[in-house]
Amino acid sequence: MRTEAGPPVTVVVGAGLVGASIGHALTGAGWRVHLVDAVPSHAMVAAGLGAGTAEPAEPSEVGLVVVAVPPRTIADVVGESLQTYPYATVTDVGSVKAGVLDALWERPVDLTRYVGSHPMAGSHHSGPVTADGDLFVDRTWVVTPHRKSAEASTARVVELVRACRARLVTLDVDDHDAAVARVSHLPHLVSVLMAGHLTDVPEEDLVLAGQGLRDVTRIAGGDPGLWQQIVRANATAVLRELRQVAVSLDRLITAVETAPTDEAPADLSLSRELERGVDGTRRIPGKHGSAAVPYEQVVVAIPDEPGALARLFGDVEAAGVNVEDIAIEHDASRQVGYLTLSVQPERAEGLAVVMRDGGWTVV
Amino acid sequence: MRTEAGPPVTVVVGAGLVGASIGHALTGAGWRVHLVDAVPSHAMVAAGLGAGTAEPAEPSEVGLVVVAVPPRTIADVVGESLQTYPYATVTDVGSVKAGVLDALWERPVDLTRYVGSHPMAGSHHSGPVTADGDLFVDRTWVVTPHRKSAEASTARVVELVRACRARLVTLDVDDHDAAVARVSHLPHLVSVLMAGHLTDVPEEDLVLAGQGLRDVTRIAGGDPGLWQQIVRANATAVLRELRQVAVSLDRLITAVETAPTDEAPADLSLSRELERGVDGTRRIPGKHGSAAVPYEQVVVAIPDEPGALARLFGDVEAAGVNVEDIAIEHDASRQVGYLTLSVQPERAEGLAVVMRDGGWTVV
Repeated sequence: MRTEAGPPVTVVVGAGLVGASIGHALTGAGWRVHLVDAVPSHAMVAAGLGAGTAEPAEPSEVGLVVVAVPPRTIADVVGESLQTYPYATVTDVGSVKAGVLDALWERPVDLTRYVGSHPMAGSHHSGPVTADGDLFVDRTWVVTPHRKSAEASTARVVELVRACRARLVTLDVDDHDAAVARVSHLPHLVSVLMAGHLTDVPEEDLVLAGQGLRDVTRIAGGDPGLWQQIVRANATAVLRELRQVAVSLDRLITAVETAPTDEAPADLSLSRELERGVDGTRRIPGKHGSAAVPYEQVVVAIPDEPGALARLFGDVEAAGVNVEDIAIEHDASRQVGYLTLSVQPERAEGLAVVMRDGGWTVV
Repeated sequence: MRTEAGPPVTVVVGAGLVGASIGHALTGAGWRVHLVDAVPSHAMVAAGLGAGTAEPAEPSEVGLVVVAVPPRTIADVVGESLQTYPYATVTDVGSVKAGVLDALWERPVDLTRYVGSHPMAGSHHSGPVTADGDLFVDRTWVVTPHRKSAEASTARVVELVRACRARLVTLDVDDHDAAVARVSHLPHLVSVLMAGHLTDVPEEDLVLAGQGLRDVTRIAGGDPGLWQQIVRANATAVLRELRQVAVSLDRLITAVETAPTDEAPADLSLSRELERGVDGTRRIPGKHGSAAVPYEQVVVAIPDEPGALARLFGDVEAAGVNVEDIAIEHDASRQVGYLTLSVQPERAEGLAVVMRDGGWTVV
């Protein structure tokens, strides 16, 4: 039985991007980390890169188990871990929390030692990415204690979040699931809806597609297998949002159907829907958790050739202006792209002048 | 009456971004351009910047009128122009074509001289932008002849498109409106729908918002006044698409409602909706009108400090790699942003190595 002070001996189950990144972060913080994966070579690769050891842990010595497996298998792996490691706090890093808890509730396991969590990082860097111990630094990591969980278990998961240098947010299980349904799962499905509609659009129409369509549909390209598990796991909360959107869509259709008349030439219903959309975009916090800042945009044409961006940013640096955000736009058929530089409003005019003087086309 | 050879004396009605940019492009190509605006000072400012002259034209000398006014007033201004300039071809640059034609059809005007058009440029650079004669270079410019238009009128509008160095696409009026309903107006309204939904989301939930939500809702921030006119003008085609989306949404809701059973554990309906979304994103052509290219992404952490981007692109340039697309991500609460560099797949590995060697964190 583990009694010594210091960080707990930790087992990370699942050596994918999130699991291995946790391994790196904890190892870097001086923790002892054992990596386990259904495919043993995955654990060995991650261990070889410094995320921990692939050697098995002595179960009675383990103080913390982090379950970083696909959503569908989380509940089973958490249940098994509670049994395998009799003194360990067990957490998971899945993006939906209630289903796991519900599945475990009636099982003969010690739920006082389980506290779910959800690091908000990594999920949209798809493709071959390498684990990174800094993945969670200053990112939100939600911890979701429940009615049966012991305070000591919650404290241990908080210790994990701190060791990964993430920003701790504590939420009730259902509140968490409702929140991610609204800001993550619903947007994904709305994007899927729009992108799916394109499968019925004639190819010659798609030649007219611009950046707006690309933005709206980008996340719909995410892994369908993973998203099926996420949506399935959060079905109740997701359905509540989807049904509200269906009501809004009906209202929007009615607004478009309602032609303006001589009596009501202002056509307020459609106007109201469009204004509501603008209001919604303004509610999304800006970067670093601050309120959305109305940056000003300086749009510069960039030749489509190697080195153009480096020269451009060199000139921006020379202007001494901090760029808050950038976006690049390559429309179909246009050889010259546009770079939108978002800067503090009081710096926009000066930047535009410097860029023009430097020979750039500022539009 | 105008009989001499060479480019036609041209009147541009409306000295906003699009109108003034056309003025610049035509003046640059040696055309004689007269600028007219409901607010005379706007025409004078544009003329002062080289987009033409604010002096009135001799009506009988005018060979082409380009109507670049807000959607709501296009039909009236086209009708007036056909009467004011008895020998001129008249075109407009609105983003919806059938409504204008319908409104003119029964009026006592010479419709053989009207041919609509739609330059696909400039509309999403909102805010204070300066007109640019290169705005249309290599961009798609749709010309929409109709049953009554004379071939000579179409030829004159084609001449305009060529002088602006745009890429000519000729489409039937209704085909054009159906296409933009699908690739532009519907995506806008779907984005509005999602963004509008956020007005009902608790503020504490929005702290968990990530890049996906921002992408899906970005265009919903567009000018509601302009979009109301566009949607109103293309209501029939937009409604057809919106109603199809309503059907798809119902199907998606049913798919989420339908829990997998022991008999059908694979839960094919939801999977099929998500796959359909992925298929849709793959149908959007890549930049320059080519088919979508599967670029590889190199994701680099960037410190949030002045000059970081310049140094970063300097190192990318030193690597000799052409960056096809970039995206920056500042999550709420994260002090270190991520820059995603899209490059040819065979260059990704090398770029990652060079960047790591240069001290950057490649994730």
